[in-house]
Amino acid sequence: MSNVHFLREPAPVNAEHDERRRELFARAEALSTDLARRGAELDRVGAPPREEIEALRQAGLLTALHSPEIGGAGLSWIDGLRLVRIVARGESSIGQLLGYHYVNSQYVYWAAADPRQAWVLGAETVERQLYWGAAVNPRDPGLTLERRGAHYVLNGRKTFSTGAHVSDRINVNATLDGKIANFVVPTDRPGYIANDDWDNIGQRLSDSGSVEFRDFPVYGRDFIQALAEPLDPPPVQATFNTPLIQLVFVNFYLGTAQGALAAALDYVRSTTRPWVTSGVERAGDDPYILEAIGELQTNLKASVALADAAAAAVEAALSEGSSVTAEARGAAAIEAYAAKVHSTHVALDVTARVFELMGARATAGHYRFDRYWRNVRTHTLHDPVAYKAREVGDFALNGRIPPISLYS
Amino acid sequence: MSNVHFLREPAPVNAEHDERRRELFARAEALSTDLARRGAELDRVGAPPREEIEALRQAGLLTALHSPEIGGAGLSWIDGLRLVRIVARGESSIGQLLGYHYVNSQYVYWAAADPRQAWVLGAETVERQLYWGAAVNPRDPGLTLERRGAHYVLNGRKTFSTGAHVSDRINVNATLDGKIANFVVPTDRPGYIANDDWDNIGQRLSDSGSVEFRDFPVYGRDFIQALAEPLDPPPVQATFNTPLIQLVFVNFYLGTAQGALAAALDYVRSTTRPWVTSGVERAGDDPYILEAIGELQTNLKASVALADAAAAAVEAALSEGSSVTAEARGAAAIEAYAAKVHSTHVALDVTARVFELMGARATAGHYRFDRYWRNVRTHTLHDPVAYKAREVGDFALNGRIPPISLYS
Amino acid sequence: MSNVHFLREPAPVNAEHDERRRELFARAEALSTDLARRGAELDRVGAPPREEIEALRQAGLLTALHSPEIGGAGLSWIDGLRLVRIVARGESSIGQLLGYHYVNSQYVYWAAADPRQAWVLGAETVERQLYWGAAVNPRDPGLTLERRGAHYVLNGRKTFSTGAHVSDRINVNATLDGKIANFVVPTDRPGYIANDDWDNIGQRLSDSGSVEFRDFPVYGRDFIQALAEPLDPPPVQATFNTPLIQLVFVNFYLGTAQGALAAALDYVRSTTRPWVTSGVERAGDDPYILEAIGELQTNLKASVALADAAAAAVEAALSEGSSVTAEARGAAAIEAYAAKVHSTHVALDVTARVFELMGARATAGHYRFDRYWRNVRTHTLHDPVAYKAREVGDFALNGRIPPISLYS
Amino acid sequence: MSNVHFLREPAPVNAEHDERRRELFARAEALSTDLARRGAELDRVGAPPREEIEALRQAGLLTALHSPEIGGAGLSWIDGLRLVRIVARGESSIGQLLGYHYVNSQYVYWAAADPRQAWVLGAETVERQLYWGAAVNPRDPGLTLERRGAHYVLNGRKTFSTGAHVSDRINVNATLDGKIANFVVPTDRPGYIANDDWDNIGQRLSDSGSVEFRDFPVYGRDFIQALAEPLDPPPVQATFNTPLIQLVFVNFYLGTAQGALAAALDYVRSTTRPWVTSGVERAGDDPYILEAIGELQTNLKASVALADAAAAAVEAALSEGSSVTAEARGAAAIEAYAAKVHSTHVALDVTARVFELMGARATAGHYRFDRYWRNVRTHTLHDPVAYKAREVGDFALNGRIPPISLYS
Repeated sequence: MSNVHFLREPAPVNAEHDERRRELFARAEALSTDLARRGAELDRVGAPPREEIEALRQAGLLTALHSPEIGGAGLSWIDGLRLVRIVARGESSIGQLLGYHYVNSQYVYWAAADPRQAWVLGAETVERQLYWGAAVNPRDPGLTLERRGAHYVLNGRKTFSTGAHVSDRINVNATLDGKIANFVVPTDRPGYIANDDWDNIGQRLSDSGSVEFRDFPVYGRDFIQALAEPLDPPPVQATFNTPLIQLVFVNFYLGTAQGALAAALDYVRSTTRPWVTSGVERAGDDPYILEAIGELQTNLKASVALADAAAAAVEAALSEGSSVTAEARGAAAIEAYAAKVHSTHVALDVTARVFELMGARATAGHYRFDRYWRNVRTHTLHDPVAYKAREVGDFALNGRIPPISLYS
Repeated sequence: MSNVHFLREPAPVNAEHDERRRELFARAEALSTDLARRGAELDRVGAPPREEIEALRQAGLLTALHSPEIGGAGLSWIDGLRLVRIVARGESSIGQLLGYHYVNSQYVYWAAADPRQAWVLGAETVERQLYWGAAVNPRDPGLTLERRGAHYVLNGRKTFSTGAHVSDRINVNATLDGKIANFVVPTDRPGYIANDDWDNIGQRLSDSGSVEFRDFPVYGRDFIQALAEPLDPPPVQATFNTPLIQLVFVNFYLGTAQGALAAALDYVRSTTRPWVTSGVERAGDDPYILEAIGELQTNLKASVALADAAAAAVEAALSEGSSVTAEARGAAAIEAYAAKVHSTHVALDVTARVFELMGARATAGHYRFDRYWRNVRTHTLHDPVAYKAREVGDFALNGRIPPISLYS
Repeated sequence: MSNVHFLREPAPVNAEHDERRRELFARAEALSTDLARRGAELDRVGAPPREEIEALRQAGLLTALHSPEIGGAGLSWIDGLRLVRIVARGESSIGQLLGYHYVNSQYVYWAAADPRQAWVLGAETVERQLYWGAAVNPRDPGLTLERRGAHYVLNGRKTFSTGAHVSDRINVNATLDGKIANFVVPTDRPGYIANDDWDNIGQRLSDSGSVEFRDFPVYGRDFIQALAEPLDPPPVQATFNTPLIQLVFVNFYLGTAQGALAAALDYVRSTTRPWVTSGVERAGDDPYILEAIGELQTNLKASVALADAAAAAVEAALSEGSSVTAEARGAAAIEAYAAKVHSTHVALDVTARVFELMGARATAGHYRFDRYWRNVRTHTLHDPVAYKAREVGDFALNGRIPPISLYS
Repeated sequence: MSNVHFLREPAPVNAEHDERRRELFARAEALSTDLARRGAELDRVGAPPREEIEALRQAGLLTALHSPEIGGAGLSWIDGLRLVRIVARGESSIGQLLGYHYVNSQYVYWAAADPRQAWVLGAETVERQLYWGAAVNPRDPGLTLERRGAHYVLNGRKTFSTGAHVSDRINVNATLDGKIANFVVPTDRPGYIANDDWDNIGQRLSDSGSVEFRDFPVYGRDFIQALAEPLDPPPVQATFNTPLIQLVFVNFYLGTAQGALAAALDYVRSTTRPWVTSGVERAGDDPYILEAIGELQTNLKASVALADAAAAAVEAALSEGSSVTAEARGAAAIEAYAAKVHSTHVALDVTARVFELMGARATAGHYRFDRYWRNVRTHTLHDPVAYKAREVGDFALNGRIPPISLYS
């Protein structure tokens, strides 16, 4: 189903790296297959995915992007996003959670004022295989930080916090005396409350309910940057979380759609009966089914190729480090946003149309084949796709790069 | 190429008829509004809709198409199908059930060899406000009838029997000594078992589980036609159930889509927040939301106009009675099948895209806004839409009318 | 949400009217067939269509909408727009010209302050079978009127004036001392210059080049209204030219698309060879060709049904005469604009895709089968379709009627 | 406009190769810009492109794929196909002609039984910068070869022979005593007649008229293979002309669409006026124009990414040389055919919709902006896209590779 092997992969550093990479991809595939097998039941229950995150941990997937120097696998973002796609084939929310973790746990490398702090956080993350979340949703009323003696306390609520129950570390933004504080904290301090209020039509395992902080203690050492004025532009390098999280979206949408198509093809092969006036003996020889599969497959291939190309573009810009310009970041982000627009259309279409391959009996409740569409439909509303298309158009026509924000 | 001559409605018979018609439409609207209010909960539970069928009965909707001479409202099929559409706006399955009942309870007028038998069945139906179902699914292994003394016994199973728990009368096809028997029976005889095995992703109230017959008694007087050889073509007039049931599909798909759009517009007005970079203060002034609503609304209007035109065409052919030719039936059926193709595309598109108007929070589970799409997605697989498009094309290009069957 | 009540046609006045109506439709069909036969050559030459307008005149089509009391055929707008559609099947520009004439020559009935003036102009039009044009394009710099003794002179230029060479009468807007003058003049006065500068990729016979007025004399009796302040709202009744001209667009787009499909079906029947791997012996049995025809035909049927429903809605509002409210006009106009949006999409799609039915050899230059698409592509840019969709959405969501203008 | 630099390019062999490659791409860009400037006039005239082929020759583009050992530039197929795309941005037919030449002139390397013969033909081609065509259209009645003394004479006619007037060498298939002969001949022998009968609605410079052979002499040394039985399967390696010619199609479709979009963006920037109700001062700030550009650009990016990925897949299979299996060839061909399906849809859509960005005045005849659509519309009918989608689906579902032919 994949054309992974046709696209550029960074030259292997050495044989050991290459072997470890192959092993991680193999484990991701195995884990994905297992998730696919249990997908209908996982969707039905919709509980926080503690076991599934543990499985990612056991497979070594949580530390795939960290440097080999601290024990990570040293994979590129291109590879990391492919791993997200593979896992999402099995279960969409788990793909989402893996991708969010990658962005959240890599963020400190770009954003921490002191690289040594990022290094220490990274080393601990690898050693203890920590899962990273965040509490930074920009459309929500903010969190507030107050001084309380020698430290601070955090109070407030975030409506949606993906991975709330499973996060070991979280990136947080909060206001302190009218300024913005940016810090990293463990979730096992007192006053961290992950509520059980995530019940949406899709991404039901994504554990995206609300979190509350009640006099949650924060220390000076947790800050990763100096306090900033609200309108201060962050360093360009520290804003790559936006194009990268959008690429996480892209890849788990596409993985989910690939999972839907794979499930449908299995069903057609094993179960679908030929239509009464089709004149063929197997549903698999029906001219309309074959053409429809060809169209869906073609659109998926194109969207995957664009996703990989966009990942390479963003990674190339990110690799410029602290010298990367806003223009270079913007041009690369446009590639990611084009991939976002495209994958949104394709994933919605594929997950809706697979039923036409399988036929009426595939709507039986126990299959829960609608979960693929529900998953994609739910998350593709994260930010309106029309505005992403507009940004792509504005860059093409007017050369305007998208304004830096948590959405663009 | 034009359907100009089909657009005329029959003149109202008289003022009394007109008043009764208006009253029925008003009751259908009220019932639909009530269903819409309870729709999310009804979908969650997914139980056989005993109360809802009772509400149709109380509103007089079950007898809308019967002749005033026996106490019916004497409405045309055009009107009957509009009533289906209105009810489906509130709840898709209830619209489906009303439409199935119309076709099943009118069928005897076209199919019964002795018109007096149909008349008697009709009069009893109006007097007792009976709900009619059927057990005639043609892709299922058939039912068998055996002689047992002076009467017969029916045995067998039908996998899908819409309205199984709520039907008072059913049309049945069964084999008897290698021939086809066609009869009407009440469901309160011993040996009728409606199973509780309907649990699909959509049309969850349609009560479409399996039925079994165990030595269910059938009497000579129940037969509405002489036994037929399996390949005997039925009288043309007796085959209008197919284009009419397809028009029932059309109209409850469109009603469901109208219901989805209406719910979404309410939500946009009351709840959706303007997008951060939209530059507008109300979501209702967002240029992309307005354009998208315009496109969805436009497609619905076109599909509704085609549905009404097709209903007029089929009704005109049906009104030729026993003199109707296979060609006239075929040409009219093509209008219905074109409406089927069109409404399938439109209803799937509208019910999927309404989320883009409302935004991310509309995916909260308690709204169950996905039910519109699940409902349409489920039933539009009844027979493959590509084959209906093919029939429309074959008629346009080659002048071939669709072969008469329970699908075309 | 429904347009149920718009679908009724006015009962025929009497048998004579009915016979005359049938005759006009028959002549329109004959004329259309002749135009289709010569269509490729007419498109190649692209000259002002003097003969073709003469043929409309001979057929009596120019006076189809005028009252029988002055010798017209008394047809409804629904019928008039169907005649436009029929003629456009043969040649798109001639359909456009017939429709423009209908709007331009009926305009005085709604706009003239003195109904007797309209009556006189109408009677002369019928008697002499005059063709009416206009010089009122609102995006163009205006024309200016100056007093010159007892009369006025008109000077200026209009870039696009459809039917410039063939118009006998024209409606004109011009500024006079900062006010707006609205008058009707014959084109055979000195100083009317129709330039030969229409050379566009489509609608090549529409004679839409520039006109100039050089000291063109205008008399007080030519005025149909008192001078108006530029921002004065016109009487609502006088603004039906906008929804009606949009319905003219709708119907000649659809007629053009019907003509394209009819030509393609002829070609498939007579010329297309079956594809090498299709397994069929006639192209006309190819499953993909049949399905594609079915889809195109279905979309055309839906768009035609919507066009007729919209025509009925606008006609119903117009029939309220001077008491029609802006709200009623706006609600009816929305039906027309929905039809505009729908027919634009359908006509572009059909005229582009008919080639896929016919195959590669149908691109031979002498067929000029691309003219259908060029015709639709050219005129559908008259005003941006996205803004029409927006107006439909704004009405559905916010109940806002479109602002009255020459575009909405 | 391009994301060329994000995709894998083969590691440069050495600095000299790299420099030569860069130079060729720069010349292709310059040549493309010049063609774009003259595109409208070239399309109007539609003559055999002698000057344009000469320009390709002067730029060294004809020998870009030949080995450096014989003086070629040694570029990969991925690069060659990108050159096709770049040239097609300027003028679609010239892009087509460059791509056809690449396939025709490389064919002998795969097909010649004696590699030395291919080498000699290649060396001569590079030295003399020869243009290669072909006469092998499989749907046309074949050419016949007869023995005439010590040599043979070729007789017959091919309806479509791209580059007929400009070819120096041609690959030919002909029947000889019921067997298939495969040979290469120069076109300057007596009896080669290229007719002036190419006049289609698009690809007007592609010089695709008929050729006739009248006692055209063919010698034993011209044969590149032994005579084959009609049903003998050719060596797998000798069948890569089909996936590669399909990739030529893909790339000149995409180049043409990129050229259309680039021209439209220039027009919007320089000429389009903002719409009256848009509320913006520049057309370039219109929300619908920006979104539409974003969608078109996104689709183009995805299709280009897929095209490059498919080129890499086919090149990888081709690089296996004579050991390549039918399965490996088939799997790679599927990537090319998916790209064919995708680029067909995208290029038709982009070239039709660019008018919506530019507005009504862009339909003025002198711009000939319709040529992009006419070009794509004409050639995308080469073989029915539905059958290519079917092949992609058949491989995905059933693992069937497409049957080897000149179409698949």
